[in-house]
Amino acid sequence: MSSSIPTLDAQALLAQVRALGEVGSGAPGDGRTRIALTDADRAGRDLLVQWMRELGLDVRVDRIGNIFGVLHAATHEGDRQPLMIGSHIDTVRNAGALDGCYGVLSGLAVARAWRAAGLAPSRAIVVAAFTNEEGVRFQPDMMGSLVYAGGMALQAALDVVGIDGVRLGDELARIAYAGELEPGAIAPLEYLELHIEQGPILEAEGQSIGVVENLQGISWQKITVHGTANHAGTTPLRLRHDAGYAAAAVVAFLREHVAAPSGGTTLATVGSLRFEPDVINVIARKATFTVDLRDPDEQRLQAAERRLGDFLVELAQREGVEIETERLARYEPVVFDAGLAAEIEAAAVRLGYASRRMTSGAGHDAQMMARIAPAAMIFVPSRAGISHNPREHTDDAQLVQGAQVLLEVVRRRLANVQGEGRLC
Amino acid sequence: MSSSIPTLDAQALLAQVRALGEVGSGAPGDGRTRIALTDADRAGRDLLVQWMRELGLDVRVDRIGNIFGVLHAATHEGDRQPLMIGSHIDTVRNAGALDGCYGVLSGLAVARAWRAAGLAPSRAIVVAAFTNEEGVRFQPDMMGSLVYAGGMALQAALDVVGIDGVRLGDELARIAYAGELEPGAIAPLEYLELHIEQGPILEAEGQSIGVVENLQGISWQKITVHGTANHAGTTPLRLRHDAGYAAAAVVAFLREHVAAPSGGTTLATVGSLRFEPDVINVIARKATFTVDLRDPDEQRLQAAERRLGDFLVELAQREGVEIETERLARYEPVVFDAGLAAEIEAAAVRLGYASRRMTSGAGHDAQMMARIAPAAMIFVPSRAGISHNPREHTDDAQLVQGAQVLLEVVRRRLANVQGEGRLC
Repeated sequence: MSSSIPTLDAQALLAQVRALGEVGSGAPGDGRTRIALTDADRAGRDLLVQWMRELGLDVRVDRIGNIFGVLHAATHEGDRQPLMIGSHIDTVRNAGALDGCYGVLSGLAVARAWRAAGLAPSRAIVVAAFTNEEGVRFQPDMMGSLVYAGGMALQAALDVVGIDGVRLGDELARIAYAGELEPGAIAPLEYLELHIEQGPILEAEGQSIGVVENLQGISWQKITVHGTANHAGTTPLRLRHDAGYAAAAVVAFLREHVAAPSGGTTLATVGSLRFEPDVINVIARKATFTVDLRDPDEQRLQAAERRLGDFLVELAQREGVEIETERLARYEPVVFDAGLAAEIEAAAVRLGYASRRMTSGAGHDAQMMARIAPAAMIFVPSRAGISHNPREHTDDAQLVQGAQVLLEVVRRRLANVQGEGRLC
Repeated sequence: MSSSIPTLDAQALLAQVRALGEVGSGAPGDGRTRIALTDADRAGRDLLVQWMRELGLDVRVDRIGNIFGVLHAATHEGDRQPLMIGSHIDTVRNAGALDGCYGVLSGLAVARAWRAAGLAPSRAIVVAAFTNEEGVRFQPDMMGSLVYAGGMALQAALDVVGIDGVRLGDELARIAYAGELEPGAIAPLEYLELHIEQGPILEAEGQSIGVVENLQGISWQKITVHGTANHAGTTPLRLRHDAGYAAAAVVAFLREHVAAPSGGTTLATVGSLRFEPDVINVIARKATFTVDLRDPDEQRLQAAERRLGDFLVELAQREGVEIETERLARYEPVVFDAGLAAEIEAAAVRLGYASRRMTSGAGHDAQMMARIAPAAMIFVPSRAGISHNPREHTDDAQLVQGAQVLLEVVRRRLANVQGEGRLC
């Protein structure tokens, strides 16, 4: 059966989200765990590839393991101007079912809409699932799209050693997803990504659709303070070199002198902090913590990094401690394509969904793809802003609205191209 | 062979310190581990009891496992006025050889001096090794002397369950040190304890002997901050309830508003701090940390506790977090006996050792015994102030000096009593 207008099959989309969410699932309440290039990730990939084949997509895998399902265009010319819809299906530990997967499966839903209409699109539609977006096991995160966009050499990525001591390239071969396509070989004319917000703003404001016009720059550092362990009861203040106090002073400084005065643009978070030896009556010999700084403006992000750096120098001198910093990740802010953002906003208006323009606080494959193609993102609400957690939730109706906007945008972007044709 | 003046056998003392230090020793560099009422503690106790018996001491064990070696006096009257010399032989994990053991074995050295002189003392000399001073496995610390001094009911102590889930009384029976003597039955007329400083002051000032005239009050709390986990990149400052920041703010407050303004009398240490989930891009849901407050003055210690408490209330309200506090330990400051302190100082002067009066920063069995008898302590230097560590060190010559002061003080305290006699 076919209709002449590509139409969303909402039930098929929701069923696939649920089915993929079962792969790697643990005890009730534990969510699912499909960390990149594990057996569970392979099982998720296998299911995705099976679904791509069922839709008649041409499945291609590149050398870093990115998976592409190509719905070929009606014409050769249209095939050379693909519109790519992508995200990822790897997860953190004990994840929700939506992060990444929702975007990839909505891409499949778009392809399915064309299939069901019996149409070949005027331009190829490529559904992409990028390798290792989460970066739990192998650093950096967003690796598959980074390599694809030319931001990291393929060989360097294959040689990355994971936290479990294994080499990425070996794991890729082991799970049989070391493909032959050169990363970047399918050059998208435009790139779209649909994703849950992973923040509280849409829900708090009662909006259904986020028109993501830019993405914050991210600066991740690991900071190690080397002090001197001593007895808490016998060491006078003047003889202390307390790594724990120094670390706490940095946490307080970031909040009080970096984030708070920025008026909301700079975010600063210390999410991980550990003391050694971590004993009640021993002054900490060592404190290790992470700093996550974000700002949509590169100049302000650099200013925040400088203020932190200056404070560390002053603190090390004042406390008689040594402070080491290690850069873990650094991404400049990304401004998405204004034309695509306007198209997303217009689609939401036509569909009658309340929307707002916004900045993505999290990193996404779209920021890498924006290096090689006009790109933009669509957000749907995350209940209580929770993600990376089994309690991650978006209502089914909201998931369907996001996919409707994606489909509408794709229809519009393909409508200005000649050459849509009825499939044989 | 005998001489008429009790004289220290320095080599015998040092040999016993080394021999006891071998019991429970691990890999080279790991120190020794004889946590209270483990098999290793039993092995240390067995060796101590053997040495007591070799000296002809009357070995008594009380119901909480405290071991006493009694060198009886020449007269029945002298036996009723014992001078007790005590400390402990249990250790922390990977300990040095001196903490506690040095004091107990110096007590044996004093008894040996009388034996070698062929004399019965004018008053009984009792060498005590108290159970579970360190409190690593069973809380509270200084338990044996606390029970002995009537500060904790025997049954409550026997019913304490350790961090490994076993009951103290059961372990005491298992290692065969559940004795029959009632705690407190041997009532000392005076109590002396010789100990390493466990702090840097004597070494920093080039002094050999610390005349300990008082001991700081100690307040230990465990504080738990309950916040809300959220994504570091998407949660605006106004919507954050960051348990990690709140914990850091307390650490900074203690240093900047409690310890620093006290002019050195109040010490405040956060030695243990943990975040959950402890992930770089997740705002901490929970932070758990300890607070160690000390002051030689009870009023100032209470004031420090109040300032902390007030700040926690203010912080919980400001940050929208919940803060729980749990008292782990609380000891009031102890003022040692002025007469004994003067005797220690005079002994150091006579022996030509540089000494200074000082406050004990750490807790010791002497603070419990001070509840039932005039008590005082003698300190010797700790290299770099290090203790509870395999690198704990005091030079042999300094150890001998401390024991000489102890012996000299005991000789003086026994000299004003009639009844010293030649042993048969």
